Amino acid sequence: MGLQETTPPAATPYDELDPAFARHRGGKMEIRSTVPLRDRDDLSLAYTPGVARVCSAIHERPELVHDLTWKSHVVAVVTDRSAVLGLGDIGPAAALPVMEGKAVLFKAFGGLDAVPVCLDTNDVDEIVETVVRIAPAFGGINLEDISAPRCFEIERRLQARLDIPVFHDDQHGTAVVVLAALRNAAVLTGRGLADLRAVVSGAGAAGVAVTTILREAGIGEISVADRQGVLHEGRPDLTSVKRHLASVTNDEGRSGSLADALRGADVFIGVSGGTVPEPAVAAMADDAIVFALANPTPEVDPAVARRHARVVATGRSDYPNQINNVLAFPGIFRGALEVRASAVTEGMKLAAAEAIAAVVAGELSEDRVVPSPFDERVAPAVAAAVAAAARRDGVARR
Amino acid sequence: MGLQETTPPAATPYDELDPAFARHRGGKMEIRSTVPLRDRDDLSLAYTPGVARVCSAIHERPELVHDLTWKSHVVAVVTDRSAVLGLGDIGPAAALPVMEGKAVLFKAFGGLDAVPVCLDTNDVDEIVETVVRIAPAFGGINLEDISAPRCFEIERRLQARLDIPVFHDDQHGTAVVVLAALRNAAVLTGRGLADLRAVVSGAGAAGVAVTTILREAGIGEISVADRQGVLHEGRPDLTSVKRHLASVTNDEGRSGSLADALRGADVFIGVSGGTVPEPAVAAMADDAIVFALANPTPEVDPAVARRHARVVATGRSDYPNQINNVLAFPGIFRGALEVRASAVTEGMKLAAAEAIAAVVAGELSEDRVVPSPFDERVAPAVAAAVAAAARRDGVARR
Repeated sequence: MGLQETTPPAATPYDELDPAFARHRGGKMEIRSTVPLRDRDDLSLAYTPGVARVCSAIHERPELVHDLTWKSHVVAVVTDRSAVLGLGDIGPAAALPVMEGKAVLFKAFGGLDAVPVCLDTNDVDEIVETVVRIAPAFGGINLEDISAPRCFEIERRLQARLDIPVFHDDQHGTAVVVLAALRNAAVLTGRGLADLRAVVSGAGAAGVAVTTILREAGIGEISVADRQGVLHEGRPDLTSVKRHLASVTNDEGRSGSLADALRGADVFIGVSGGTVPEPAVAAMADDAIVFALANPTPEVDPAVARRHARVVATGRSDYPNQINNVLAFPGIFRGALEVRASAVTEGMKLAAAEAIAAVVAGELSEDRVVPSPFDERVAPAVAAAVAAAARRDGVARR
Repeated sequence: MGLQETTPPAATPYDELDPAFARHRGGKMEIRSTVPLRDRDDLSLAYTPGVARVCSAIHERPELVHDLTWKSHVVAVVTDRSAVLGLGDIGPAAALPVMEGKAVLFKAFGGLDAVPVCLDTNDVDEIVETVVRIAPAFGGINLEDISAPRCFEIERRLQARLDIPVFHDDQHGTAVVVLAALRNAAVLTGRGLADLRAVVSGAGAAGVAVTTILREAGIGEISVADRQGVLHEGRPDLTSVKRHLASVTNDEGRSGSLADALRGADVFIGVSGGTVPEPAVAAMADDAIVFALANPTPEVDPAVARRHARVVATGRSDYPNQINNVLAFPGIFRGALEVRASAVTEGMKLAAAEAIAAVVAGELSEDRVVPSPFDERVAPAVAAAVAAAARRDGVARR
């Protein structure tokens, strides 16, 4: 497979010299058999007639599907390609490289198998029905790159209908790692979460999830801004999702711009792009914490932010404190699947954040409030914490 | 994963001593990454930000999805679990071991990756819609263990809606290998296909497909029997599928039982279970050819059949001449995917049968009218013949 060496250079945007294209030739993944298939005896055990006895056993005792198939270690990575990276709706085929990338991360970091599923629909009802119908052969559903506000309804309806974990990584993966980093940044600056006033920029998938988890974790005060400014209940232009956000945040009834809200705030969390001018960062409280997570261009240049803030994190690998979802989703699914959890609870997400934070608790510094994505201690710690939380929350089935 | 050694013996039907169960612990397959993920540079090429350039390129030039993802070598093995082996509708989870088995055969024999998809529906419209929606990430669709007559409509509608090969193996895999074996049996007995009168027992998925391919290949005469006897246009009890079969077969207007039809026939092909008594086999023509393909119990004991017939084949691995679909589907998909065929045509199926037959053309004997399933010459020969036929039939896209 792959282009022949003799193929003439393709038109833009396929760049033969771009190493990303070389890495993608033929795709990034394959299936391997884990059983031998050398002779007729092997065939008669892995396939007919032996397999019929295994099928009958599962038919009689459905829980055996976890022991006797790959269900207990395979996750469907499902997208409707409505929000692929920063590219928007580029169609299901063009979303496949991202889903394959996610699948190989599941393997490399979580030891789990994952299958890309790119749906040729972005109708909410059709997405839900389709995923419900293909779910029997999977142990979990990772939703990926589905735009807000549709992602909230899709995840909620799927989790209600399925007895396996459903997890929208763009929401909860980000939220879990943000909470982990914020816990450590608070410790580093001698405060608790309850002492902090935070401002979230962005009311999309990540913004909603970050706000939710910070409230659950006991943040002191939190308000959310969209492009029109701070969300408050007096604003007439809010969608239902934003109306709800306004009703559960901004206890002090602020209004005005993002810069207005940042004045005296302890924490800025940017998850929507846009820019924050330096004076707005300078006007934050002492020991400010700035998470400028827009990719590839952070809301404020990290070097500029560092002049005024004590802790700065971004989504980029070339600055300290990378908020990378790979710290969360492999261990979360690993832990959930190990105990055959029927869902991912809020308790499991909080436990994951605590576990990530704890990995570097003894090594904290301004440039080290989260572990490196390649820190091998993370996924096992997250998996163990998530499995324990699933048992506490009553969703574990073993 | 898998049961602990200390787990007490499970209730019937899980038999700890059955080697088939031991082979199935933890499932039979896994995903492997084919790209390195050792450091941040690797991550930035396989995933963000590098992957975004690859997605954009596919968005601009959709055909690049074949070069830059695993689509060109991955097949969905789709079942609605309505006819799993001889077990009937055992539910989607209990069908998974068969689909995993099929997937590992795709890899071992065709070098292709395959993903089990067990649908939690057996409504025809829902099956079609679901497969259409998940199709973008797959290079081909192998339908498996879907009951007749629904399988005919499902395959036809899917092939009409999708631009990738759709192939119901229970129909066409069997038909292709039967034709290959029959070609060689005819040569061995000094006849052409046009000289043969054949009787097919079974008007389900395999019976319909076998009848269709034998007619296309130029069989002299063919009639089909169901449990009520030979299909003919005078029978008032026929379904629409059987009515069509009756109209295109049985040119001599036979009626009566299967045994009646077998009197003086050259070929018996059993694909429906049931039994054929020895006198009925004895009443066939000289140099009779008997393919008793019911599994695990052939329609007539092969040793008994051999007393009266020149060539006997079964579906079993412990007798000569095993009619095993694994001779067909790996090479058929391999060839179709190599040329990015938009469908599987009748010409491609006929070419596959000829290629299988040709592999053992120089070694023919009564006990060797088809190659062994482990004959490594088969899949490459089938793939080459199928790719060439796809080009002839105008469905190849490279």
